[in-house]
Amino acid sequence: MTTRVLTGITTSGTPHLGNYVGAIRPAVAASHRDGVESFYFLADYHALIKVQDPARVQRSTLEIAATWLACGLEPDKVWFYRQSDIPEIPELTWLLTCVAGKGILNRAHAYKAAVDKNRADGEDDDAGISAGLFMYPVLMAADILIFNANQVPVGRDQIQHIEMARDFGQRFNHLFGKDYFSLPEVVIEEHVATLPGLDGRKMSKSYDNTIPLFAPRNELKKLIAAIVTDSRAPGEAKDADASHVFQLYRAFASAEETAAMRQAFAEGIGWGDAKQQLFERIDAEVAPLREKYEALIARPAEIEGILRDGAQRLRAKYAVPFIAELRNAVGLRDLGQRSESVVAESAKASLPQFKQYREKADGRFYFKLLDGEGELLIQSEGFDSPKDAGQLIAVLKQVDSADAMETPEIVLHAPAVQVLEALTRLREAEA
Amino acid sequence: MTTRVLTGITTSGTPHLGNYVGAIRPAVAASHRDGVESFYFLADYHALIKVQDPARVQRSTLEIAATWLACGLEPDKVWFYRQSDIPEIPELTWLLTCVAGKGILNRAHAYKAAVDKNRADGEDDDAGISAGLFMYPVLMAADILIFNANQVPVGRDQIQHIEMARDFGQRFNHLFGKDYFSLPEVVIEEHVATLPGLDGRKMSKSYDNTIPLFAPRNELKKLIAAIVTDSRAPGEAKDADASHVFQLYRAFASAEETAAMRQAFAEGIGWGDAKQQLFERIDAEVAPLREKYEALIARPAEIEGILRDGAQRLRAKYAVPFIAELRNAVGLRDLGQRSESVVAESAKASLPQFKQYREKADGRFYFKLLDGEGELLIQSEGFDSPKDAGQLIAVLKQVDSADAMETPEIVLHAPAVQVLEALTRLREAEA
Repeated sequence: MTTRVLTGITTSGTPHLGNYVGAIRPAVAASHRDGVESFYFLADYHALIKVQDPARVQRSTLEIAATWLACGLEPDKVWFYRQSDIPEIPELTWLLTCVAGKGILNRAHAYKAAVDKNRADGEDDDAGISAGLFMYPVLMAADILIFNANQVPVGRDQIQHIEMARDFGQRFNHLFGKDYFSLPEVVIEEHVATLPGLDGRKMSKSYDNTIPLFAPRNELKKLIAAIVTDSRAPGEAKDADASHVFQLYRAFASAEETAAMRQAFAEGIGWGDAKQQLFERIDAEVAPLREKYEALIARPAEIEGILRDGAQRLRAKYAVPFIAELRNAVGLRDLGQRSESVVAESAKASLPQFKQYREKADGRFYFKLLDGEGELLIQSEGFDSPKDAGQLIAVLKQVDSADAMETPEIVLHAPAVQVLEALTRLREAEA
Repeated sequence: MTTRVLTGITTSGTPHLGNYVGAIRPAVAASHRDGVESFYFLADYHALIKVQDPARVQRSTLEIAATWLACGLEPDKVWFYRQSDIPEIPELTWLLTCVAGKGILNRAHAYKAAVDKNRADGEDDDAGISAGLFMYPVLMAADILIFNANQVPVGRDQIQHIEMARDFGQRFNHLFGKDYFSLPEVVIEEHVATLPGLDGRKMSKSYDNTIPLFAPRNELKKLIAAIVTDSRAPGEAKDADASHVFQLYRAFASAEETAAMRQAFAEGIGWGDAKQQLFERIDAEVAPLREKYEALIARPAEIEGILRDGAQRLRAKYAVPFIAELRNAVGLRDLGQRSESVVAESAKASLPQFKQYREKADGRFYFKLLDGEGELLIQSEGFDSPKDAGQLIAVLKQVDSADAMETPEIVLHAPAVQVLEALTRLREAEA
């Protein structure tokens, strides 16, 4: 059986070298593995949580789509689509919202971090926090579950979100009595290379320290020149493992090249030379991709066409039939098709039932009668034995008037006429 | 200009006399007013918040649709549709989720009541509370805003939800710079008759004390016989205003009939006779509707057709073009259509800017440089006058090397190369 692997990229920024090394390059490589059905999507609904600049969302969507294609993703061999082209995703988001426990969402790391920051700043817990940040894990669960993805490669900080998707899916399966959803596995990307940025911290948009993947050649050179280093002079031995320049170099070089550079550091290569070699090494890998990227981004209508085509085929094959099944599961049904099973289910669902139980507090035996929707109709007093309770149940099942129900051993929690009707229906169903 | 009036009915139960008198009868009457465009919808996404019984959702949808049609709603003169047939509603729900403040949702009455109950029971605040209950006001805002409804007739307990819809709509308008949404008015239904149920409390599904609107004649009679009364004998004068039987009678009777019944109460009419007259009065109004209802409910496929047709016309006329406009507003755009305005907007959005201000704490004058996305690039020290600050800004706008920015009066919060690039872009844009 093929494994479905799903990867989403939020369309809120410009792809940088860190994205390329940490996510894009390995994901494109993985897309060529056998036995894998790959799903790559542009998470533009997610982008809206943080970005209220429409031009930036549009630009980022175009840039990221062109980047994946330039880096070798083949849209006829993998599913490549834009989240907002799949209306079944927001619909499933609502269905999952109705089964998701609010308490679980309170514990999401991203939300908690925002609350902690507010507290540190002396603000109200939820000051400036949008419902989007809070509900993000439910949208992410819908992204995964709508295609029943088996694996979602994520960093450690995202494990919790996958666990939430499992929780919501499992709860839905349980409530509606069938394994509609496969539960996604957490696949931790232990070996993801994280690159240092210009200032030495992890390269990340949030630190404003990135090198754009497809910066023009001269811009790339300027940015590399700006990477922080220590002040050792040419000729002084340098510690390769402590150097951001070396770390960047290693992410692009072969084992031999890396060993040679380590040697050069020990022998006191000057920072200017090391940076020049780093620049040449990165540019050697990136230049052919940059050329493709620039050709692609000049034809946005073609990219639009590729994305739409992907979504259309994917909807027809998976999303549309699956949401129909899920809608049927929760009761959003074609009123004209009242199948036998629905009628039977309906009759069963609405049958009242007696429940016998022993109360821990006093050790006595009780029963109650619930209607088909679980509302309390009769509550008994305590009996010395389950047999005593059972005898009164047997009597009640035979009553045919409100008077016949008058005994101090039970309390009616609904009008007598309604209780009587429930008992009659139960008797008829059991006959 | 016509006023758009929107009414939703959650498909979680069977319509009862209370629904009929309080909502259905006045709404059908209102649908015949001039200058009004009426929207009536079956809120089945809302039903999923509380009901996990699919057969019940389906049955309730059919019953409620048949009820509205039997009671005189004309689907060719009003918009009559099922919420889940409009995929633009869950999509707009997500767009609004991204602008809705979480703190506002914390204060919703229904959610707070559930938390209070948990506290009283010694449970965790959010025990057993679904995200659906929490997010309900956002879905309701989408119901209203997708059609830019002007009025939403509600009971007092729903005022807050309309205010939230206004808040979310206003915030969206503000963030995206145009009045996409008209803000709905709160229309309080001061004169809504609330009927007593079998036990004398307000007739409501939650109290299990309802009389189904289309109960068969003999069942209706039995239920009326079960209404609680005091124990005054025939011949004893009775207090009409304190009697549930009288209240129910008045909701169906003319002024003359009501006056005559009041007189009969004063003269000591027996409870059996009063209930018999009540039964006859209700049945006189309900019987012709019941006949239509039974004919309708026997042809569920026809009702399905009416609902689908309503949704299809409504989507084509309003929902589909409007969601396209809203998607464009937030940046979910056709990549192939990079209009001039988008390019201009993009350039403007991404322009860095200097901000000058006076710090209250020390009374001194400061400035900062922000990039187009609002990230801090430069923070100045305090100056004695705004002029001093302005002079340094003028200098900075002319710098052409990182060295030239080296002054103790500013701190760079981003790599020098990036700050330099921002200053260059600003200079070019202002040239």
